[in-house]
Amino acid sequence: MSDGFGGELAQVGGTLVTMARAARESMRQASAALLSSDHALAQQVTERDAEIDVLSRVLEDRVYELVARQPDGRNVTKLMTAIRVAAHLERMGDLAVHVARAALRRHPGPAVVPELAELFSAMSAVADDLAGKIVSALTDHDAVLAAQLDADDDVMDELHRRLFGVMLSQEWPMGVEGAIDGALLGRFYERYADQAVNVGRHVASLVTDPA
Amino acid sequence: MSDGFGGELAQVGGTLVTMARAARESMRQASAALLSSDHALAQQVTERDAEIDVLSRVLEDRVYELVARQPDGRNVTKLMTAIRVAAHLERMGDLAVHVARAALRRHPGPAVVPELAELFSAMSAVADDLAGKIVSALTDHDAVLAAQLDADDDVMDELHRRLFGVMLSQEWPMGVEGAIDGALLGRFYERYADQAVNVGRHVASLVTDPA
Repeated sequence: MSDGFGGELAQVGGTLVTMARAARESMRQASAALLSSDHALAQQVTERDAEIDVLSRVLEDRVYELVARQPDGRNVTKLMTAIRVAAHLERMGDLAVHVARAALRRHPGPAVVPELAELFSAMSAVADDLAGKIVSALTDHDAVLAAQLDADDDVMDELHRRLFGVMLSQEWPMGVEGAIDGALLGRFYERYADQAVNVGRHVASLVTDPA
Repeated sequence: MSDGFGGELAQVGGTLVTMARAARESMRQASAALLSSDHALAQQVTERDAEIDVLSRVLEDRVYELVARQPDGRNVTKLMTAIRVAAHLERMGDLAVHVARAALRRHPGPAVVPELAELFSAMSAVADDLAGKIVSALTDHDAVLAAQLDADDDVMDELHRRLFGVMLSQEWPMGVEGAIDGALLGRFYERYADQAVNVGRHVASLVTDPA
């Protein structure tokens, strides 16, 4: 592998880091918009999403070009993995947009009923933690950090279960609309965490793969 | 491009057709299980999912190997696209499993309350139609058919909107649990259709791409 090619691989990695930061920031802002009914902030998240999508297309084009130019078993696997990571990060951005849109739909009212605010605050903290670890793992090629994501995801799954427990309890006073919003928002956070775990697995395999 | 390589490309295409058939059959059975509370059928869907996942891994391995062996701008793009199509088909299989699990969760009761049965029957028909068109488009490399998927997806989106209209109407008698099930199931069908549209776009670009 020439130094030039190594430099181009590093550039692809740099784009992934930028995408991961954007996917984290989007969900962070979407969560803040959701929990404080902040219309402008939610709007901002939906507008930024196009940037993540463009980055993903740029990365794909660059990878296709590199693969066509530099046939090498090892690099092909790495470059394919970069495309898969980009697809997961793009999806994380989409899920942040779904959260932001839920906030916009109920504005000026809250999309999260008071009974669920604490749970969604906890879910958004776990989501931010997962996304932060992805940024670090991609930046530092840190397989150990990447491997920790599974445990964080277990916390998210537990919060998700508690959410349904609250909504299905006899004491649930918020009616159908609040429950539908809660169910869908819960799913967005759970999927965001799943995508983050997928990114972590790819990073772990990239770093530890001897090939 | 040697004939041998063309044959290997065709083999990759054949695996995609097999996956598409399985993703269609899974959702067809999941829908039947959902609408008739058929426990055994729902169970079958969850078990078959592993087959789709294995096919996806087999396809990926073969593509990596082909890319590494046969550097060629045109084929690289095609092979990358095959991986993306496989990822969408795998996701369609996952969504069928989600529908089947919803049926299992409420068994022996129905996961779809009577008020929503007709809507979900319509959504499952659209899903099956979309999946059938994907199978045909992949089999016949039919870009025209692939391009029709967008219109079918509009029908699904309209059904999805009606679903929320029914659940949020004043007359909704089924309480929170029925609404949560309805909201999540609605999302599974909507996402299944989205994934099908993505497959259609990839097929259309493969067939019409001059490169």
